[in-house]
Amino acid sequence: MRATILSVGTELLFGQIVNTNAAYLSQQLNLLGIDVLYHYTVGDNPERLRTLVTHAFHDCDLILTTGGLGPTQDDLTKEIVCQVMDDRLIRHEPTLEHLEAYFYRLGRTMTENNRKQALVPSRATVFRNDAGTAPGFALEREGKAILCFPGPPRELHRMFEAQGKPYLEKLTEHSIYYRMLRLFGIGESQLETDLLDLIDGQTDPTYATYAKEGECSLRIASKRGDRAEAKAAVEAAIEVVRSRVGRFLYSTEDEELHQVVARKLLERGIRFASAESCTGGLFAQTMTEVPGISAVFDRGYVTYSDRAKIEDLGVDPATIERYGAVSRETALAMADGLRARTGCPLCVAVTGVAGPDGGSEEKPVGLVYISAVLGETRICREEKIRNVSRAWNRNYAKLLLLDTINRLLDGSDPRND
Amino acid sequence: MRATILSVGTELLFGQIVNTNAAYLSQQLNLLGIDVLYHYTVGDNPERLRTLVTHAFHDCDLILTTGGLGPTQDDLTKEIVCQVMDDRLIRHEPTLEHLEAYFYRLGRTMTENNRKQALVPSRATVFRNDAGTAPGFALEREGKAILCFPGPPRELHRMFEAQGKPYLEKLTEHSIYYRMLRLFGIGESQLETDLLDLIDGQTDPTYATYAKEGECSLRIASKRGDRAEAKAAVEAAIEVVRSRVGRFLYSTEDEELHQVVARKLLERGIRFASAESCTGGLFAQTMTEVPGISAVFDRGYVTYSDRAKIEDLGVDPATIERYGAVSRETALAMADGLRARTGCPLCVAVTGVAGPDGGSEEKPVGLVYISAVLGETRICREEKIRNVSRAWNRNYAKLLLLDTINRLLDGSDPRND
Repeated sequence: MRATILSVGTELLFGQIVNTNAAYLSQQLNLLGIDVLYHYTVGDNPERLRTLVTHAFHDCDLILTTGGLGPTQDDLTKEIVCQVMDDRLIRHEPTLEHLEAYFYRLGRTMTENNRKQALVPSRATVFRNDAGTAPGFALEREGKAILCFPGPPRELHRMFEAQGKPYLEKLTEHSIYYRMLRLFGIGESQLETDLLDLIDGQTDPTYATYAKEGECSLRIASKRGDRAEAKAAVEAAIEVVRSRVGRFLYSTEDEELHQVVARKLLERGIRFASAESCTGGLFAQTMTEVPGISAVFDRGYVTYSDRAKIEDLGVDPATIERYGAVSRETALAMADGLRARTGCPLCVAVTGVAGPDGGSEEKPVGLVYISAVLGETRICREEKIRNVSRAWNRNYAKLLLLDTINRLLDGSDPRND
Repeated sequence: MRATILSVGTELLFGQIVNTNAAYLSQQLNLLGIDVLYHYTVGDNPERLRTLVTHAFHDCDLILTTGGLGPTQDDLTKEIVCQVMDDRLIRHEPTLEHLEAYFYRLGRTMTENNRKQALVPSRATVFRNDAGTAPGFALEREGKAILCFPGPPRELHRMFEAQGKPYLEKLTEHSIYYRMLRLFGIGESQLETDLLDLIDGQTDPTYATYAKEGECSLRIASKRGDRAEAKAAVEAAIEVVRSRVGRFLYSTEDEELHQVVARKLLERGIRFASAESCTGGLFAQTMTEVPGISAVFDRGYVTYSDRAKIEDLGVDPATIERYGAVSRETALAMADGLRARTGCPLCVAVTGVAGPDGGSEEKPVGLVYISAVLGETRICREEKIRNVSRAWNRNYAKLLLLDTINRLLDGSDPRND
């Protein structure tokens, strides 16, 4: 089954909103074994919308739309879908009740334009909106189907999970199996070179590399008659990849690096604390994205000023004076101070030059020191990040810190890898 | 002039990467007064790519592509563009030299597939890649133009700014003027209702509302023969909007809330410190995105555990015992402790229930207390965030904290607005 994802909304064409919906639905459809051939985005223009829907049905038998279902005047998706699928809009009483209850709960008056949202195509399977007002729906005709979802991501996600996915599972049979591997410390080009024979000769399983800011992913997929067979083929391929680039591989389950680290810390009950300078809280913020992390995360310090490093972490002013705030000595003193103050078994610190200013010949923008104390181990890692931008440097410094913890937890020395 | 933005890359169709390039280019084209009619995304499939390029030129006279220019085998953009624009690829010597120098600088060996990147259409205007390897280019034929850029965002941004934009400025004449207003504390639906007569009757200036996670934007644009006239029309419209929803308006220059706050703190030289519980460093991280903030940001504490609140901020254990870690009393004690410890004129703290677990009847997920001490002013704000998700709640709590600071700096009381 082949699909097009069609996003409706002038705000997308103005570039004021990034289209995360297309990525989300693509992931979901891929998991269902449905191939996504196109993403289209169009504004609130009826002719162009009609043209694209028609065009999408030329190559595909499934269209998923997002947006244009709301109460405002430029929300046209339903009207156009009815024209193409030869249906008409009728009032859907359960939706009207849902809308009334929704506004009542919020203590708001329901404006007249909101009633428009209760109109749906007469033959549609209606999807209730549990996170907002506009309902979604599915409509089939001549073996082709169109599924329409609201544009706000949280409304889309909830509706798709609970109602869209089951609907599509019935529509299609799938026997695809894939795994997403994640790597840090190797570039996409090098990864492809290391796996060139696999990629060149690929029929099944297939290999695809992706670059993310500072990281790499590798997707290994197999599509066979039998799911167990596909799974076995992918798992065998993973072992081949591991034998070649295993030292960069941190997840075979598409986890992010901070999720891997958080999982290990939670599993082993290792309490930890952090002291950040150049990353300004990015590490703490990322770790605390994980629900339940409070069981092991004691605290974090964003010691941006020298004074904070001295007062909060007990760094000797003479150390900063002699070696500078960005130095191996200061980084180690930060981690030591953190250990002395908090008693946490894992204490990490990072100091560096994030840029764009503040660099020098001796200490250029991108230079970072990562220190860690874990039990009896006490290390400091010096890295020179390729200076791309302040945001890149900060993010990469955070990844280096996570990578350092991950390797320490695995019992290897991050300085040698 | 009407444009299509065409993104090439199977990774986009797998949903592994969110298409930020389309949003970026849309913004840039809008600034140049070029209307964007479509975004298309297609994978590494030559037939479909050719079809879309042809289709795009049916409605538009300008196409911007991203991706598919790299060294790997599935990078096909140049070949297809040559077919459609009736040109052929030749080796571009300056690019080859640039590539060799690039790899030499990095101390890496240039693999054979990288040489492919030095091929460009013979009639093209070549865009040098200052942040990577693949060059971009522009190619015109019969009054239509196609501009091809690399996919990695930082390469695209640098190339577009320095070379793509000047190229397009020559191609087009523009007399559009627009401003983007940003609001916090009002929903998109309410904003539209408050401005309904302006939106309904719009010819010029035009008004468009956008919802962002927890925030709203309003774009006011005018397109006239004379730029000064367009500017005057937009500025008059801003004043009308201000008279209606001014209390939610925090920027008429499309600044983000943290940028507005950082600017004011830097301008007035107000040193500040933060203590975060539920937001886990999100506030500190966001503020330290701003280059130069170290001049006023002293330090941040991520006091995730009760012990950290007591040890670092001097919160009385009895206060936490009696009122709970999420309470007005604890929030105020955190800010007070911060002031006592750091002496910063502005000290802010936030504590709340981020979820998904940890809520109770009395203190539900989404409940948050924001405290601030600025000079003699000492306030605490209680808010109940609509519980959407952990990420939403944390982000909204951060926005509330920023909003609190912003209002205090403007001399108003955040609790009454």
